[in-house]
Amino acid sequence: MTAVYDMLRRVTTATVTTMLLKKGIRHCWLKGAMPLATGAPRLVGPAFTLRFVPVREDLATPESWGKPISTRAAIEAMPAGCVAVADAMGVTTAGIFGDILVMRMARRNVTALVTDGVIRDKAGCMAANLPIWCQGTAAPASVNGLTFVGWNEPIACGGCAIFPGDAIVADDDGAVVIPQDLVEFVAAEGEEHERYESWVVSEVERGVPLPGLYPPDDAARARYAAWKAKRG
Amino acid sequence: MTAVYDMLRRVTTATVTTMLLKKGIRHCWLKGAMPLATGAPRLVGPAFTLRFVPVREDLATPESWGKPISTRAAIEAMPAGCVAVADAMGVTTAGIFGDILVMRMARRNVTALVTDGVIRDKAGCMAANLPIWCQGTAAPASVNGLTFVGWNEPIACGGCAIFPGDAIVADDDGAVVIPQDLVEFVAAEGEEHERYESWVVSEVERGVPLPGLYPPDDAARARYAAWKAKRG
Amino acid sequence: MTAVYDMLRRVTTATVTTMLLKKGIRHCWLKGAMPLATGAPRLVGPAFTLRFVPVREDLATPESWGKPISTRAAIEAMPAGCVAVADAMGVTTAGIFGDILVMRMARRNVTALVTDGVIRDKAGCMAANLPIWCQGTAAPASVNGLTFVGWNEPIACGGCAIFPGDAIVADDDGAVVIPQDLVEFVAAEGEEHERYESWVVSEVERGVPLPGLYPPDDAARARYAAWKAKRG
Amino acid sequence: MTAVYDMLRRVTTATVTTMLLKKGIRHCWLKGAMPLATGAPRLVGPAFTLRFVPVREDLATPESWGKPISTRAAIEAMPAGCVAVADAMGVTTAGIFGDILVMRMARRNVTALVTDGVIRDKAGCMAANLPIWCQGTAAPASVNGLTFVGWNEPIACGGCAIFPGDAIVADDDGAVVIPQDLVEFVAAEGEEHERYESWVVSEVERGVPLPGLYPPDDAARARYAAWKAKRG
Amino acid sequence: MTAVYDMLRRVTTATVTTMLLKKGIRHCWLKGAMPLATGAPRLVGPAFTLRFVPVREDLATPESWGKPISTRAAIEAMPAGCVAVADAMGVTTAGIFGDILVMRMARRNVTALVTDGVIRDKAGCMAANLPIWCQGTAAPASVNGLTFVGWNEPIACGGCAIFPGDAIVADDDGAVVIPQDLVEFVAAEGEEHERYESWVVSEVERGVPLPGLYPPDDAARARYAAWKAKRG
Amino acid sequence: MTAVYDMLRRVTTATVTTMLLKKGIRHCWLKGAMPLATGAPRLVGPAFTLRFVPVREDLATPESWGKPISTRAAIEAMPAGCVAVADAMGVTTAGIFGDILVMRMARRNVTALVTDGVIRDKAGCMAANLPIWCQGTAAPASVNGLTFVGWNEPIACGGCAIFPGDAIVADDDGAVVIPQDLVEFVAAEGEEHERYESWVVSEVERGVPLPGLYPPDDAARARYAAWKAKRG
Repeated sequence: MTAVYDMLRRVTTATVTTMLLKKGIRHCWLKGAMPLATGAPRLVGPAFTLRFVPVREDLATPESWGKPISTRAAIEAMPAGCVAVADAMGVTTAGIFGDILVMRMARRNVTALVTDGVIRDKAGCMAANLPIWCQGTAAPASVNGLTFVGWNEPIACGGCAIFPGDAIVADDDGAVVIPQDLVEFVAAEGEEHERYESWVVSEVERGVPLPGLYPPDDAARARYAAWKAKRG
Repeated sequence: MTAVYDMLRRVTTATVTTMLLKKGIRHCWLKGAMPLATGAPRLVGPAFTLRFVPVREDLATPESWGKPISTRAAIEAMPAGCVAVADAMGVTTAGIFGDILVMRMARRNVTALVTDGVIRDKAGCMAANLPIWCQGTAAPASVNGLTFVGWNEPIACGGCAIFPGDAIVADDDGAVVIPQDLVEFVAAEGEEHERYESWVVSEVERGVPLPGLYPPDDAARARYAAWKAKRG
Repeated sequence: MTAVYDMLRRVTTATVTTMLLKKGIRHCWLKGAMPLATGAPRLVGPAFTLRFVPVREDLATPESWGKPISTRAAIEAMPAGCVAVADAMGVTTAGIFGDILVMRMARRNVTALVTDGVIRDKAGCMAANLPIWCQGTAAPASVNGLTFVGWNEPIACGGCAIFPGDAIVADDDGAVVIPQDLVEFVAAEGEEHERYESWVVSEVERGVPLPGLYPPDDAARARYAAWKAKRG
Repeated sequence: MTAVYDMLRRVTTATVTTMLLKKGIRHCWLKGAMPLATGAPRLVGPAFTLRFVPVREDLATPESWGKPISTRAAIEAMPAGCVAVADAMGVTTAGIFGDILVMRMARRNVTALVTDGVIRDKAGCMAANLPIWCQGTAAPASVNGLTFVGWNEPIACGGCAIFPGDAIVADDDGAVVIPQDLVEFVAAEGEEHERYESWVVSEVERGVPLPGLYPPDDAARARYAAWKAKRG
Repeated sequence: MTAVYDMLRRVTTATVTTMLLKKGIRHCWLKGAMPLATGAPRLVGPAFTLRFVPVREDLATPESWGKPISTRAAIEAMPAGCVAVADAMGVTTAGIFGDILVMRMARRNVTALVTDGVIRDKAGCMAANLPIWCQGTAAPASVNGLTFVGWNEPIACGGCAIFPGDAIVADDDGAVVIPQDLVEFVAAEGEEHERYESWVVSEVERGVPLPGLYPPDDAARARYAAWKAKRG
Repeated sequence: MTAVYDMLRRVTTATVTTMLLKKGIRHCWLKGAMPLATGAPRLVGPAFTLRFVPVREDLATPESWGKPISTRAAIEAMPAGCVAVADAMGVTTAGIFGDILVMRMARRNVTALVTDGVIRDKAGCMAANLPIWCQGTAAPASVNGLTFVGWNEPIACGGCAIFPGDAIVADDDGAVVIPQDLVEFVAAEGEEHERYESWVVSEVERGVPLPGLYPPDDAARARYAAWKAKRG
């Protein structure tokens, strides 16, 4: 997948969603998973999923952190390069991870953490150099509102279904999921789409109106073909 | 568990939540899961869980209904007497089951269907004689908004964590979950609590004010003890 | 106020809101406070307020029910004829009152209970013969989600400000609050408005279109005046 | 369209949504538009649209009811048999129509009123014999929260786009919109689908499990063909 | 209007809302329309409206971008200096415009884009030098969740009614709408209010408590008059 | 309390919530109250409460600002060092305070303003040097949506109960409330917890996996004891 992932790194999440729409897929952008720090480079990786259910007071305790099914154990199972995607059910009152867990993930060369929930210890998380897409920050720990139940299962995240191994692309416009079977299609079509849009931008810059340009009529199509041929 | 379940059938869901609060458990009432038809008898059974994630257009199709992991297959795995509890993520725009699936569940002697989502084919579902607790009704099928991913896993339902085998009690006040380890405690304490409340009702009926009665002061405690002794 | 309250009993809540709009008041209908049982007669009374804040686990316990500031003590302070209005902050997961407290309120000749929250022990509450306007039913007790802090203070309820002594009118369209200073205005204007609308209904029944009738043009105004004069 | 509408009257809204999914349409069920009275017959008609925007206090007044662009004028423009569909932006605190307007619509032989908002004067509306699908009831008038801006424009209603002339089908599961170009397709396919489901019901009644039956495998397909042939 | 717009540019949106309250108008601040980049100068212009309804899958497609009623055509109809106000129904999962359309709007000397929805291609939009007030950013295109239906009609935006030609004022506190008939009133009163508040600030700076100062008692009124006279 | 407050200033809000969980308290983080400016130092102080109810148009007017029960009067009652906590019922469309009131609070040496609502005049508020935790900014004044009713009463704020005199701690992760009786416990336990976590960080930095470290097994506990002893 490495070559395809490299291609995807040059395709904006905006373009990814437009390519997926060609296949009838509208549920691919993870609502709520926005960059904790803006301006970071676009990141791509296979999804490693984490699943939470609501708090049950007898199970969701600091003691649970030492159990075999725990966020700690899940982190040790993460392969280098993966994007950890956590189903926090959109809960914004309990931070699923704090600085210590985030540091450990960075150590294990995880590419990014993506969640429809929030993190805690914001300052420490930012210092840990793990790019994070989330809804924001809260002081309480996950056990204040959530019970961790497992990893690498199908999950919900931000209104999307995520299956382990799906591709995640994340940039300033948020995070999107590409079903595993469509990764090559999106990468190839996306590359061409980015090329076309860069030509459209140059046209708009010289004052061409959009009707007939984007989407293109026959004249625009011809001008684009010429530009593309020249560019090589 | 049969004897304990019989005891629970005489304990209101209101009392169950008060008993669970003694153990520090506040997340036990399934928000949104209300009786489709009011006035039904209280029902009790072990939870059989069903799990949905959001729709992915390439997976959530009528064709998916024929796959090995499908709501159809899940129904065939339900043991008689269980309460089917479905995590529909609170989605109210896609009915997780229609009349045909509900009829089949009734045939298999499922005790009840409980969900934080909605059902479809309301008239047919009501005719099928399977008691249902849900948020209401919608015309679209589950695949319009949801993808089914499995059964008998821990789930979220109405803001609660549900583990397979937990006890579900459902009546006109909604549905509650009792963690498996606390079922005997709740049944025993609940029975005494119901007895006490029935005495309080008789006191209120004869005009006794609530302060000092509920909760009881020493005098009320003595009167209750006498009433209880007499009653045998 | 008795005579004015008698007049108000003949004015629909719909008309009350239209009369209040003449005074620039748009926030007067209590969102969420709907009749638990439909078809009851219209009820009117002065507001007796109850105030809850969110649960704090060290304070919101069954033990708190025996303290001086408790829902029990508040009920004993309610004068006959009042409408108890409870600010439950719109919380729908904790029933502010169950059957026993409702029975006691009925005993004390409270006119009605109105809340933007929910009640519990639905069957028992319906049997207690206290008319209730609320968002519905939940099994858990108030202490599961709320802490009671006092009575006869200004409160929020359903998006409205309620001050002790304001008039509450409740019917099948819900519950409305009339600021104390405007009660006489609303009663007098409302009576005339009801008369006018009953004439409009008779006009619509005989096939008159609405433009020019409601609101009336000069011709309609004359016809109405004649009808009113004849009716005496 | 009369013949097609007659066919649609025999197709449940649940089936309509399943047929539309075959064409990739998932946004067709009007969230919030539920029957005010249950158990009514299924209704079908072409959409006549009404559009509201939020209240602006200088425009949304009882005086506005006499202006050329008013709900009154819109009602007089409704053709017999149409289904009036009102975009109330999901607002639940202002009733778009009361008993008088509803009476006039019934007089004009409007088939039904469908809205993602609420109505007022519930008792009067129920008496007026105009079937209504809505979110419920509120006492305040439309001008308390909404400004009426026009009719027979494209609108939003319950999360769906509605264009004048689209077909609306409404029953106990709610209301659905069929794009004008797909009405014949849905009617024809829907009729066959209902026939197939009625056979499935008979199979479930005699104890056949769902896997292999719904959706059908080859054996089931053959049994169904035989049943259909026999039935004629 | 140019002179009045120049005056409004010196009046904060906070002051605009206080002046409109004098005329009974409380619905004038566009909820959700916040500056994409903070610290920009205050902007003023007449509203040019755009209207979206929910996605209908057969209409909301990339192909629709080439149709006569399209966002592209709407942009070509925008006069220089206008503020484009888009009714996106508060949808946050589909960006109504991306960098290319925003570039074209900047080219056409549009003053600003204001919406209760979101934009996409955030980095490109920020580079295009068109000030934007919105709820944030999403990767998917408008057609993922919305259908464009027209321009220069009355619209809803952020809980307000907007009519073409109303004045829009936008700064760090968000965007407000001034009904066309009230623009001169707000400009004149707003200028005096700003002067008064700047005097109050100087008073607070020298330690004067607020009671008696803001709102002013007679003594404060006199001090202010003196300050104003001196200032000339 | 000064010494205890000094200790708390070294304890993160994240740690405070974990310590309170040991006492069974999960409702202690004020949802919505986030820092207006990030990167400020942690602040601690006793809560001075302010209470709003919804707007009533006859009471919530600019004229009300001059009444005895007004936000102005409340500010004059604030003791130096307090944290003003305002119950704005989570309303985000009316700014409870603008720059002038915030300036006066800063003048009176208030430590911080914390609310589940929003402020207005953002630029002026930031310049006034009063740290603020809130949901954001809106142009309209409090009277646009809220009626002020009093101070130093128990309030709701961000889903928590706040009693006057409770300790408030606020930093980049938001604001938390510590019940007055638990302040010493949290300060003492929190200090030790911070020490332990700083050791864990050093362990993670040298590559130690989390299972067995956090929470610690016996080996880790011993290593920590040694580190602590050495550190003195």
